[in-house]
Amino acid sequence: MPCFLPIDADSDFSIHNIPFGIFSTTDNIEKRCATRIGETVIDLRELSKGKAFDGVPGFSASLFEQSTLNDFAGQSLETRRAVRSHIQALFTTGSEHSLEKNKDLLAKATHDATKVQLHLPVRVGDYTDFCASEYHTANAGRLMKVPGPPLPPAWNHLPIGYHGRASSVVVSGTPITRPRGLRPPAPGSTEGPSFGPTKSLDMEYEIAAIVGGRGNELGDSLGTGDVLENVFGLTIMNDWSAREIQGFEMIPLGPFNGKNFGTTVSPWIVTLDALRPFKTSLPHRENVPEMASYLHEADNKPTFDIELDMTVIGRTHACDALEPEAPCLLVRTTSTPVSPATNTSQSRFGQMLAHHTVSGCNIQPGDMLGSGTISGPEPKSLACLLEITERGTKPFKTSGGQERVWLQDGDQVDMTAVARRKVDGENANVGFGVCSGVIKPAKV
Amino acid sequence: MPCFLPIDADSDFSIHNIPFGIFSTTDNIEKRCATRIGETVIDLRELSKGKAFDGVPGFSASLFEQSTLNDFAGQSLETRRAVRSHIQALFTTGSEHSLEKNKDLLAKATHDATKVQLHLPVRVGDYTDFCASEYHTANAGRLMKVPGPPLPPAWNHLPIGYHGRASSVVVSGTPITRPRGLRPPAPGSTEGPSFGPTKSLDMEYEIAAIVGGRGNELGDSLGTGDVLENVFGLTIMNDWSAREIQGFEMIPLGPFNGKNFGTTVSPWIVTLDALRPFKTSLPHRENVPEMASYLHEADNKPTFDIELDMTVIGRTHACDALEPEAPCLLVRTTSTPVSPATNTSQSRFGQMLAHHTVSGCNIQPGDMLGSGTISGPEPKSLACLLEITERGTKPFKTSGGQERVWLQDGDQVDMTAVARRKVDGENANVGFGVCSGVIKPAKV
Repeated sequence: MPCFLPIDADSDFSIHNIPFGIFSTTDNIEKRCATRIGETVIDLRELSKGKAFDGVPGFSASLFEQSTLNDFAGQSLETRRAVRSHIQALFTTGSEHSLEKNKDLLAKATHDATKVQLHLPVRVGDYTDFCASEYHTANAGRLMKVPGPPLPPAWNHLPIGYHGRASSVVVSGTPITRPRGLRPPAPGSTEGPSFGPTKSLDMEYEIAAIVGGRGNELGDSLGTGDVLENVFGLTIMNDWSAREIQGFEMIPLGPFNGKNFGTTVSPWIVTLDALRPFKTSLPHRENVPEMASYLHEADNKPTFDIELDMTVIGRTHACDALEPEAPCLLVRTTSTPVSPATNTSQSRFGQMLAHHTVSGCNIQPGDMLGSGTISGPEPKSLACLLEITERGTKPFKTSGGQERVWLQDGDQVDMTAVARRKVDGENANVGFGVCSGVIKPAKV
Repeated sequence: MPCFLPIDADSDFSIHNIPFGIFSTTDNIEKRCATRIGETVIDLRELSKGKAFDGVPGFSASLFEQSTLNDFAGQSLETRRAVRSHIQALFTTGSEHSLEKNKDLLAKATHDATKVQLHLPVRVGDYTDFCASEYHTANAGRLMKVPGPPLPPAWNHLPIGYHGRASSVVVSGTPITRPRGLRPPAPGSTEGPSFGPTKSLDMEYEIAAIVGGRGNELGDSLGTGDVLENVFGLTIMNDWSAREIQGFEMIPLGPFNGKNFGTTVSPWIVTLDALRPFKTSLPHRENVPEMASYLHEADNKPTFDIELDMTVIGRTHACDALEPEAPCLLVRTTSTPVSPATNTSQSRFGQMLAHHTVSGCNIQPGDMLGSGTISGPEPKSLACLLEITERGTKPFKTSGGQERVWLQDGDQVDMTAVARRKVDGENANVGFGVCSGVIKPAKV
């Protein structure tokens, strides 16, 4: 596909990607639907107004007249596919629908990606977080001193998940204020808990699925095979966590204030169609009991091979006058089959959908399903500080030589994800952009 | 206040109540904002169109042109109060603004309460459930075999809560489909879990606060004293639960499919102003550690005296041809200070608001905060079957003599709540109406 827009050799946004997002510009602060190719953000509302989608089956102009992507996400897979393929055709040299010669419409609809503001792509109705990685589940259970065996009783039988907080899901670039809360006394102490800012602020690298299609009515359920229809696409997700607050509060009803102060997502929703060339199978796991029939998958390549990087940029906290450091690569999980999680995950998004709805719980377009922390077996594949620092006992050094066990004020965490390949020698990468957040000091 | 509308001697809806809800009629299926006095449902949009709110400080006509109460809930306490007082004046004989003589407007705006359809009063953004009753928390922990002491480590220090599922919150009268899920093997069995409909379907009597006012921005927090401004009002809430599914899945991240298949609320939101005459103090509790300063309350009457009844109407399951039984009163907690919970609750809604936001988590108008199951110390004050039947080991009899340990298909659960008093010998009750649900068979 020879695209007439410029695309860097290593861009996340080849014409094989075509993700969906929401943007605004300084001269028009209205939030509008967009896609991105190379360094160009493309205004889909302008394209629609310019009749560029006329004739696309299922398309209606109102879909791109919204300030979120919920309506578009709620279309059938067929319509979403037709629109995405058509966008590729619009920007391909020589295609029947190519806009290459339509300079007026191009001028109205294209923006320099460095000059736009990106927003939360969907209004998140409900947000659910799973824990799909066996390594993370076992490590976190041990380090958070969850009673019982390393893996919870249900872990081998179903995708364990819990309901998260939807209101505090924010887009990449939104500052995260250090949360305050009750910190438990030291073990053996006769003191009570103390109130103040968390001293153990953490991040968790996850991939989130944004629900698409019609979802299901209350009382009905979806199957694992409904994943293509009912997942609009994937984003990176940072599940910020305050570990001592979480540890104190979570018995017996699960995490609450230790998690609900902010969850950051990357701004571009990458479709499962774009990731199709990177589908891969899961390694065989030994001694795993067979799952219930509603969790069986017909697809023998239910996951994707995506490279995930997480960096920390340390600054002297609360002192913005200092030069920021270079990014310190903390985690790299390269060429690992992700579920979106690791190769030991047994819970793919299809299974999460089926499990979430088998009770009759209704899911809706714009809902978000987090994978859980994508930790693998290697030290460089542990995807949160809880695991990397063994709950604050093994410091790491930032690129500037500062020691960290937990995040300090001013620290910046960046997560990126990209699936790489070439087509005819050209970049055909499908990447997610960056999921970034800076820690602001706690409120006094 | 001599009201010119007819009000039954024992009506929940005296003119001292003025709750808010959403209704439609057979000849106009549009959802509209309403209040209720006696047996009359009053269309607030019609009143607004008829200029009845002209001059009320802060009022704007768009508030009652919505299909949910979120916009009205999001107004300041001052505006909400002015509107509610004005509604009382509109229906009072001889008041300056009385509509008694305005037969045209009355004809347009009033409906027989038995002939309207009531809808979910707000679009619930996020739903959080707490566990405010010490008795329920200790009983449920013991019966659900939560490891550790009867009360969780944090229980005396903070209001323990978890995030629930907002999409499946439904209005009274919506059928509840028996959920399916994984049921754990019997203790000691070498079998795995089995998949099928829950065999231990339960209800939980709770009171929910619907958030009003502006809420708080992400990173900010509210204090206990913000409760009047930031609670729009209260409803009854039935937190349906599938006990064996919940028990299997909830370690370590809390309840999920065991709770997310449906949560029923009563259709009328009763304001804290209406409940003001029923404010009461909490009994002194011994040996309770002092709470952190952010949970302190200046109000020495932080709770309300409300009578709560829960009945079960048993039918031979799945056999609608049989005559329904009479209601079987299972729970009556009379004249107990409720927080909305029992007199041993230490978590009032002001504390819940303060705790929920101390992390910086943002709450928004329409969010819902459940009290947790309102169980007291007496056998007749246990507010769920888990406790009433000692997890299915002690059956009770319905009024028709059927034995139950858990709910069967066709069973109907009704919850009512009323605060009773007389003013000048006249009914001045403030009640909630009914929160009702019937169990439908599981999907095959």
